[in-house]
Amino acid sequence: MKIAVIKETNPGEQRVALIPDLVARLVKQGLEIWVEARAGEKSFWSNEAYTQAGAEVIADTDRLWGEPDVVLKVAPPNPAEAGKLRSGATLISCLTPLANEQLMSQLASQGVTSLAMELIPRSTRAQSMDALSSQASIAGYKAVLLAAAALPKYFPMLTTAAGTIAPAKVFIIGAGVAGLQAIATARRLGAIVEAFDIRPAVREEVQSLGAKFIEVPLNEDTVGENGYAKEVSQSAKELTQATIAQHVRSADVVITTAQVPGKKAPLLVTAEMVSQMRPGSVIVDLAAEQGGNCAYTEAGKSIDRHQVMVIGTINLPASVPVHASQLYSKNISTLLQYLIKDGVLNLDFTDDIVSSTCVTHEGKICHDRVRNFVKSTSQPSVVA
Amino acid sequence: MKIAVIKETNPGEQRVALIPDLVARLVKQGLEIWVEARAGEKSFWSNEAYTQAGAEVIADTDRLWGEPDVVLKVAPPNPAEAGKLRSGATLISCLTPLANEQLMSQLASQGVTSLAMELIPRSTRAQSMDALSSQASIAGYKAVLLAAAALPKYFPMLTTAAGTIAPAKVFIIGAGVAGLQAIATARRLGAIVEAFDIRPAVREEVQSLGAKFIEVPLNEDTVGENGYAKEVSQSAKELTQATIAQHVRSADVVITTAQVPGKKAPLLVTAEMVSQMRPGSVIVDLAAEQGGNCAYTEAGKSIDRHQVMVIGTINLPASVPVHASQLYSKNISTLLQYLIKDGVLNLDFTDDIVSSTCVTHEGKICHDRVRNFVKSTSQPSVVA
Repeated sequence: MKIAVIKETNPGEQRVALIPDLVARLVKQGLEIWVEARAGEKSFWSNEAYTQAGAEVIADTDRLWGEPDVVLKVAPPNPAEAGKLRSGATLISCLTPLANEQLMSQLASQGVTSLAMELIPRSTRAQSMDALSSQASIAGYKAVLLAAAALPKYFPMLTTAAGTIAPAKVFIIGAGVAGLQAIATARRLGAIVEAFDIRPAVREEVQSLGAKFIEVPLNEDTVGENGYAKEVSQSAKELTQATIAQHVRSADVVITTAQVPGKKAPLLVTAEMVSQMRPGSVIVDLAAEQGGNCAYTEAGKSIDRHQVMVIGTINLPASVPVHASQLYSKNISTLLQYLIKDGVLNLDFTDDIVSSTCVTHEGKICHDRVRNFVKSTSQPSVVA
Repeated sequence: MKIAVIKETNPGEQRVALIPDLVARLVKQGLEIWVEARAGEKSFWSNEAYTQAGAEVIADTDRLWGEPDVVLKVAPPNPAEAGKLRSGATLISCLTPLANEQLMSQLASQGVTSLAMELIPRSTRAQSMDALSSQASIAGYKAVLLAAAALPKYFPMLTTAAGTIAPAKVFIIGAGVAGLQAIATARRLGAIVEAFDIRPAVREEVQSLGAKFIEVPLNEDTVGENGYAKEVSQSAKELTQATIAQHVRSADVVITTAQVPGKKAPLLVTAEMVSQMRPGSVIVDLAAEQGGNCAYTEAGKSIDRHQVMVIGTINLPASVPVHASQLYSKNISTLLQYLIKDGVLNLDFTDDIVSSTCVTHEGKICHDRVRNFVKSTSQPSVVA
């Protein structure tokens, strides 16, 4: 079975889908690995490292996309790239399936079997394939480093000959994987950390990392599919905002991580809240690409409003490409090995890992949620 | 007695010499404080905060420089600024006295009494006035944040569902105040830290922060005036370089902090050493403004050589302006209060704090080392 590792082409994307270490493991299992020339360049793996691991380094992109049985990528392919895939081939990659109906339709119509790394179920069995988690953790870590570098203050409390430095106060909104790693990193650097999440079940995790858990008593269910937060009612939103406002005001750093899969990110930090922050404070918005959790966020920019720096981050995992690639490689190769039986890809749709992850197969969009999304967005709206 | 706080004009300088908290203390002691309009703007203190603290906010720079008894600044004044000082006035500021003979001569000829914050002796008595230390500590902290943000890897060791992340290896050259704070910060972030210093006496401090002390057995004295490292012989340099090379090679991050007061920084990390580092490694050179400890350093730039990022930092304390200003304010106001007897400035040249710090007085350069430096540089050299 031939497996291709494609060089990423998105601007700023520095990761690679499979690092040499894991190439070597797959080669040992009898798989043939093709790697696009310079695929590992931005994550500091050379063509030579891939060759030594047993891969064939190939420059011809048409061959790389068109011949193999399985194609591995990090970011979704663009239409031209996807157009090179042959019918019957399998694409395993992040695909943003709930925000990219055109790609979903194209892959289906080309007869490509595609598996979206974002849709790996959050089960114990699939934990080592969970790319969303491995990459979100990096985003949470890096968000704190960016905040600390931008803050005009120290993070740690220090007792010096010229007086005592008070520790920075960091408020983290959303205690998912990114939020928890942000808490851990801010604590490592010596900050006082508060964290808010609408899911009360995360309280213990937050507290075990040394942060104070900020709770809003809501009378409704806040946990959606797969353990992610789900959208809540208007009254719950208002109560949440009032609580958030109070803690944003006293923070030196606010890190927002609230995303609802397939939807625009909820607005949690309003313009008014920003105006009430201390001059010199910093907001890092990890939901910038989904519209942002802060009113002032602009994706890819650092904006100064009311003397508060609002950093709208894009694809932070790509900025830590060695370890992001290492973890992603482990995720994707574990999935690949899980799918291979007797040297060939074997998709058992009664298995929830397969049925959750596979979005197109045999000419159709085979994933209910993705199919419904594509239907809803591809119909022309009646009202302008 | 009138004391003026000047708005800094150097590009990138975000600090202010006196923050409102310390203005209030000095006003309470009967001093009259003038603050230049917007002096605290870049360190997030408003004109209103200064007014509330009891200062008079003044926009007229000629008055601010020309009338007061004492003028406080962070960075050395430019010739035009210094030209506004009246004879008999006192300037307290960083003055880079051993790299700025023109300013020294100008201040002397104008009859200005000037005290250089860099020359505060490193004694227990003067500890709370030691601006070099308070600012170097910030540089060491920030250097690690910059390195961590630039490194394509995590700093901490992490055990994840997708495998174990090895901790970053950080090698710190020079365990002065900046180096020690860099060690502490890198350890906070979970890195494995090694530190080198030619002064064996710092071993225990290094070890107490959780770093491994790298020693080179030299048969000569390596400690100069004031406890700083001093220049060593050629053979000692070679032995040192061999040791350094070995540890640079295995590091993910190298932070260099070696400066010899009044001299070009020693070259410690050669081009060859950089070429032997792992691709993706990062060097932060805190001596960039003094010529750099690394062969590739360019002050104010981040340079990619052999896939190693060489960051030549400039004035890092200014990039943490709230706490840098707070600590500097404490340093300078402690010195000021120490010099004031019965409401007037009283310079007792038998006091080592005064004699070490005062560089010009009554029309002369009164500081031996500074006078010798000015003499040596102002004579035209015979050989081209």
